[in-house]
Amino acid sequence: MADSLNCDLKPLSPLQLFERVTEQGEKVRALKAGKAPKDEIDAAVRMLLSLKLSYKTTTGQDYQAGLPPRDLLLINNGTTKEEDEDFVDPWTVQTSNAKGVDYDKLIVRFGSSKIDTDLINRIERATGQKPHHFLRRGIFFSHRDMDQILDAYENKKSFYLYTGRGPSSQAMHVGHLIPFIFTKWLQEVFDVPLVIQLTDDEKYLWKDLTTEKAYEYAIENAKDIIACGFDINKTFIFSDLDYLGTSTGFYRNIVKVQKHVTFNQVKGIFGFTDSDCIGKISFPAIQAAPSFSSSFPQIFNGKENIQCLIPCAIDQDPYFRMTRDVAPRIGQPKPALLHSVFFPALQGAQTKMSASDPNSSIFLTDTPKQIKTKINKHAFSGGRDTIEEHRKYGGNCDVDVSFMYLTFFLEDDDRLEQLKQAYTSGELLTGELKKVLIETLQPLIAAHQERRKQVTDEMVKQFMTPRKLAFEF
Amino acid sequence: MADSLNCDLKPLSPLQLFERVTEQGEKVRALKAGKAPKDEIDAAVRMLLSLKLSYKTTTGQDYQAGLPPRDLLLINNGTTKEEDEDFVDPWTVQTSNAKGVDYDKLIVRFGSSKIDTDLINRIERATGQKPHHFLRRGIFFSHRDMDQILDAYENKKSFYLYTGRGPSSQAMHVGHLIPFIFTKWLQEVFDVPLVIQLTDDEKYLWKDLTTEKAYEYAIENAKDIIACGFDINKTFIFSDLDYLGTSTGFYRNIVKVQKHVTFNQVKGIFGFTDSDCIGKISFPAIQAAPSFSSSFPQIFNGKENIQCLIPCAIDQDPYFRMTRDVAPRIGQPKPALLHSVFFPALQGAQTKMSASDPNSSIFLTDTPKQIKTKINKHAFSGGRDTIEEHRKYGGNCDVDVSFMYLTFFLEDDDRLEQLKQAYTSGELLTGELKKVLIETLQPLIAAHQERRKQVTDEMVKQFMTPRKLAFEF
Repeated sequence: MADSLNCDLKPLSPLQLFERVTEQGEKVRALKAGKAPKDEIDAAVRMLLSLKLSYKTTTGQDYQAGLPPRDLLLINNGTTKEEDEDFVDPWTVQTSNAKGVDYDKLIVRFGSSKIDTDLINRIERATGQKPHHFLRRGIFFSHRDMDQILDAYENKKSFYLYTGRGPSSQAMHVGHLIPFIFTKWLQEVFDVPLVIQLTDDEKYLWKDLTTEKAYEYAIENAKDIIACGFDINKTFIFSDLDYLGTSTGFYRNIVKVQKHVTFNQVKGIFGFTDSDCIGKISFPAIQAAPSFSSSFPQIFNGKENIQCLIPCAIDQDPYFRMTRDVAPRIGQPKPALLHSVFFPALQGAQTKMSASDPNSSIFLTDTPKQIKTKINKHAFSGGRDTIEEHRKYGGNCDVDVSFMYLTFFLEDDDRLEQLKQAYTSGELLTGELKKVLIETLQPLIAAHQERRKQVTDEMVKQFMTPRKLAFEF
Repeated sequence: MADSLNCDLKPLSPLQLFERVTEQGEKVRALKAGKAPKDEIDAAVRMLLSLKLSYKTTTGQDYQAGLPPRDLLLINNGTTKEEDEDFVDPWTVQTSNAKGVDYDKLIVRFGSSKIDTDLINRIERATGQKPHHFLRRGIFFSHRDMDQILDAYENKKSFYLYTGRGPSSQAMHVGHLIPFIFTKWLQEVFDVPLVIQLTDDEKYLWKDLTTEKAYEYAIENAKDIIACGFDINKTFIFSDLDYLGTSTGFYRNIVKVQKHVTFNQVKGIFGFTDSDCIGKISFPAIQAAPSFSSSFPQIFNGKENIQCLIPCAIDQDPYFRMTRDVAPRIGQPKPALLHSVFFPALQGAQTKMSASDPNSSIFLTDTPKQIKTKINKHAFSGGRDTIEEHRKYGGNCDVDVSFMYLTFFLEDDDRLEQLKQAYTSGELLTGELKKVLIETLQPLIAAHQERRKQVTDEMVKQFMTPRKLAFEF
C-alpha cells in the first residue's frame, strides 16, 4: 500500500498534496463519526500519516489544516534573506535589485525552461527568418514546451497564438506593446491564427469601474492593438464581457476548468482570501479557457485539439501553470508558453511600468514633448554624479533605464552595442544616451498614433466579430 | 466615533460583521507590522474590539478568525435539542418529524412572511380568479414582497416570473411538477412573461456528468416542462450552458453579482469549503442573474427595472436571499418570492422526494402498474397496525404520505375533506386511501405522458430560442 501510494504521489504538487491530506483527514473524521470498523479507521489513519509525511518531504513544512501552502514559487526564492526576495504575481512585481528581477532564479522557481541559443537557432531554421531581437536579446527569455510546438510545426501540424490584455485604462503605455509586437512577429513567421483576450470582466472585478467603463476601455485598447498591424484575416480580438455571451464553446470550457480547480488551489496560486469576491476567485478559469481551441468554434470549426502557444509577460504564468495542470484532466492539450521580462518603470527596474502611475509610464498618447520631458526628468540613470566621474568611471547599463528601453526598441544590434560600449567607457553621457532614446521613441510613437488614427470603428467591429479566419481546420 | 460606528453597523448581517472584524484585524496587523504610530494602532484596536462586541451581540458567539458564522438559519432552529433540528439547504432536506419540516418555524428562521388569508384574498381580487389549491392548502405557504408585486400589479405595472430546474437526470418525478403547475397558473391569471432556467452547468459541477450529458438532461427535462402546457408565446426556457453563450445581458449580470458576494458569504449561506471547486463557489451568481430583467434583453427590450417574481420550493431560498442582498447594490430591484413546501418522499415526510432514489419517487415515465406498485409498497401509511385498531382509533393524515400527495393532486376540496374525515375516523382503510391516490395519479401521469409525446424537437427549439415574447416593454 505504502509503495503504491508513494508511486501515486510523486508527481503531485504541494497544493495537490495539501488537498489529498485535507480530503484524507475528512475521511478519517467521517469514519470515526460513523463508527466504522477499527481496521478501516486504522488504514485510513495510516494513509493520512503517510500523506502528511509526503507533504512535509515536498514542502519542508508540517501540514497545517486550513493553511494551504501559498505558492512557494511566489514567496520564497530559495534564499532566506528577505532583501533578496523578488515578488512576482499577476498584480505586483517588486524587487530590491536595480537591475530588475533575477530572471534566471525565476526560471528555476517557476519550473519553466530558458530560451537558449539552441532553441533560438531552431526557431530560425523552422521559420527561415532571422529571430526577432526580443529573442536575441533575452527579452523573451523563458518558455514551456516551445520545443513541442516546433516538433509539431516541422511535421506540418499547426497551432494558434493566444495573448491578451487587461484594459484597466484608456491609455496604454509603451511596455504594453511588447507582447503584441512579438506576437505579431510570431504570427507572421509561423503564419498562424491569433486570438487576443481583453479581460474587461477582470478589470470590472478588480477595479472601481462599471462594466460599461471596462468595456469602453477594452474597445479603446483594441484600437491600439489593431494599430500594431495585425492581419484582420488572421486575428480575432474579443472582450470577455461580450464574447462570453456570443460563444457556445467559451463558457463550456470555463465551467470545465472551474470544476477542476479548488479554492485551495487558487488561494495558493493567486493569494486569494476568504474576503475576496467569488468573481475574482473564479476568474482564473476565464483567462485559462482561451488556451483551448474549442473556445473558438468559429475559428477552429469546433476542433478541440489544436495546440496553443501563449506569448506573455512572466507575471501571467500562474494562470497558465494552473491551465496546464487542468488541461489533461479535461482532455485538452496543455498550452505552450513564451515568457517575456517585465518592462521597467521609468524610475528603475525594481518594478514594472504601470499605467496607473503616470510618472512611471510613457503612454502611446504622449506628445514628442511629453516623451522628451518624461525621459529627461524621470528615467533612472546608470551614469555618474558628475561629468568628470562619468568620463573617468563610465556608466552602468545594467541599471540604466534608458539603455534598457533601447534594448526593447532600438532594432539595430550594432548601434546598440556601440552605445553600450560608449556609455560604459564614459565616452557617452547620460543626456546623450537619453537623447538617443528620445529620438528612437518619438518617431515610433508618432507612427503608432498615425496608424491608430486609421483604425475605424468598422475595423474594430470586424476584428471583434467571431468568424472564420483565413485558415482551414 | 463609537456612536457613528454603532449606527453604521446596525443593519449588518452576521456575515457582513464577520467580514468587518476580519478586515479590521488585518488592518491592525498591517499597522503593527508597519510600525505605525501608537495612537493610530490604538484607535484601530479599539475599533476592532468594538466590532468584535457587535459580532458577539448579533450572533451570540465569540468571533473566531477563519470561522465565519455558518448561516444561523440553516444550522440552528432556535432550540437547543438536536432532535428538533430541521436541516434545509438547496441540496438536503432532513427532519426527524414524520409530519415533515416545521414550516412555521422555517418562516421565522428564513425571515420570510406567511401567505395568510388576507394575501390569498388579495390575489383573488387582483386576478379575479379563484386561488389555486396550492395557495388554499398552504402548499405555497411563504413569500417575500408578494404584497409589493400586487401593489404594482394593481397600478398596471407588470412583472415577470422566473423559476427553474436542475436537470440531474432524464427522469423527472411528480414532485418536480409542483413549481411548474403553480407557475403555469400564475402566468395564466396574471398574464405575464415567464423564464425557466435549466441549471445544466450546476449539475455538471456537482455530479459526475459530462457537459454533454447535463445538456442532454436539460433538453429532456424541457420536454416535460413544456408538457405542463406553457404558452410558447409567453415562455422562454434556457439551458445555462447554452444561454450564457447567447446572451449579452446574462453574463454581465452574473459578473456583477459575483463582484458583490464574497467567499465568506457563500461559505456561510451554502456551506462551501476551501476544497470545493471554484465553479461551485461562483455558481450562486448564475442562479441569481435571471432575477434581473436585463439578463433577457430580447424579452424586455434591454429594460433593467422589471420586477421579478420567483415561485420555488423553499430550499432554493438561500440563493434568492443572497440575490436580494446584492440587488440594491447593483441598482436592480429585489426579486419577490413564493415558497412551496417540499414534496415528501414515498417513505415519509422526513425528507423530500429525490430522483436519485427510485424507491422514493414516482416518475413521470412510470406506467400505471409501476405507480400502483410503488404506492402500495412504499407509501408511508398513517394507518394503524391492524384493521381492528384502525377502525377503532382511525388513521393519522398528518404523517400519511398518500394523503399528503392527495393534497397536492386532488383538486376537489370537498372530496379531500371527506377522505380526511373518513380516514381519521377509521372508516377509510389505508388500502382504500392508497387506491384513491393511485386512481388520481394514474390518469394525471398518463395525460402528462400523452402531452409529452406531442412535444416536438422543433417546439423545444422554439421555446429555447431567445426571442421577443408576446409582451411590450
